[in-house]
Amino acid sequence: MTPGRLITLEGGEGSGKSTQASRLVDDLRSQGIEAVLTREPGGVPLAEQIRDLILNTRPAASTAEFLLFAAARAEHIAELIKPVIELGQWVVCDRYIDSTRVYQGELSSIPAELISAVETHTVAPYFPDLTLMLDLNPAIGRERALMRGDTNRYDQAEAQVHETIRQGFLDIAAREPDRCVVIDASESEADIAGQISRVVARRFGLSG
Amino acid sequence: MTPGRLITLEGGEGSGKSTQASRLVDDLRSQGIEAVLTREPGGVPLAEQIRDLILNTRPAASTAEFLLFAAARAEHIAELIKPVIELGQWVVCDRYIDSTRVYQGELSSIPAELISAVETHTVAPYFPDLTLMLDLNPAIGRERALMRGDTNRYDQAEAQVHETIRQGFLDIAAREPDRCVVIDASESEADIAGQISRVVARRFGLSG
Repeated sequence: MTPGRLITLEGGEGSGKSTQASRLVDDLRSQGIEAVLTREPGGVPLAEQIRDLILNTRPAASTAEFLLFAAARAEHIAELIKPVIELGQWVVCDRYIDSTRVYQGELSSIPAELISAVETHTVAPYFPDLTLMLDLNPAIGRERALMRGDTNRYDQAEAQVHETIRQGFLDIAAREPDRCVVIDASESEADIAGQISRVVARRFGLSG
Repeated sequence: MTPGRLITLEGGEGSGKSTQASRLVDDLRSQGIEAVLTREPGGVPLAEQIRDLILNTRPAASTAEFLLFAAARAEHIAELIKPVIELGQWVVCDRYIDSTRVYQGELSSIPAELISAVETHTVAPYFPDLTLMLDLNPAIGRERALMRGDTNRYDQAEAQVHETIRQGFLDIAAREPDRCVVIDASESEADIAGQISRVVARRFGLSG
């Protein structure tokens, strides 16, 4: 039995995270690895209810929003990530801790020490074994998001906000090079999938 | 204008917190003080939705439950406690930070440093000016709760749990004597209201 692994995909809107997460799961399965696809916020029923609550009733307090996301993650870990990994299977998750650090930390000014305290007590030991940072010029990401009719509130933010998000992810990747790999998400879907497949094979010693 | 104040009532089930909170608000108003009655978890729409979510879909992860309560509190503070106090009015709140410390900290084993980090970043500067700890032998509290048909999950807990809860509140009162006053909640409703009225008058220099 291979040890269970947690791979996360991060990046701005329109960077292709969801598509690539799904392709990665297919790729792993084609190599005989049992893999589960999930996303945040969400992934388990209570967390999906919290996701709906955040989207439908935008909290007035940014701290409340942060804590709701954190609650959804704690439940997601307890009910899905932990048990799947303990079965020796792999989890591929579309957004995880780095989205919190960037969206709540950088954009909503939640203090880093609060984010860190909550990470320490709710995420550990389920930190990602590998994080794929899908990096894209925000202008291209926005175009892609609009093309698929996605107009949630983050997409309505200004170009500067998107640049802050991009830089936030790149800064994390630079600080944690052992965990994070930056992927050029401006290429075609198939090319990006190829890059990811090679990175994963190399990182975990798969024959590919 | 008197400065706005925050008075919280804490204690186990059946200790009469809700009744006494309501009587205290009437008492304050009869003295010309504008006072708002509220409760936790809840008090504002999003927090009430979170309360329903916790009661209807009990989180599997105790950390998720803790974070949901904390999110509800952050929103309650931002949308009710802060603006009411800034108007110079008084807030009387049925349960607040000490219920978190006792129910999540003592009973659900949420680490004290996580509770403390979240308090520091979401509650401050809205710590209570006065906390009334309604103290009651758990057997009497349970009898009262059953008589009013209240059978939520805390009431179903065992006698030892109720004793832990009682001791948890008493320990906080002993550690923070400047903020907390223990009220003997075994007396009649009118007698307890009288005790509270005198404590409040003395604490805030009201003529009574």
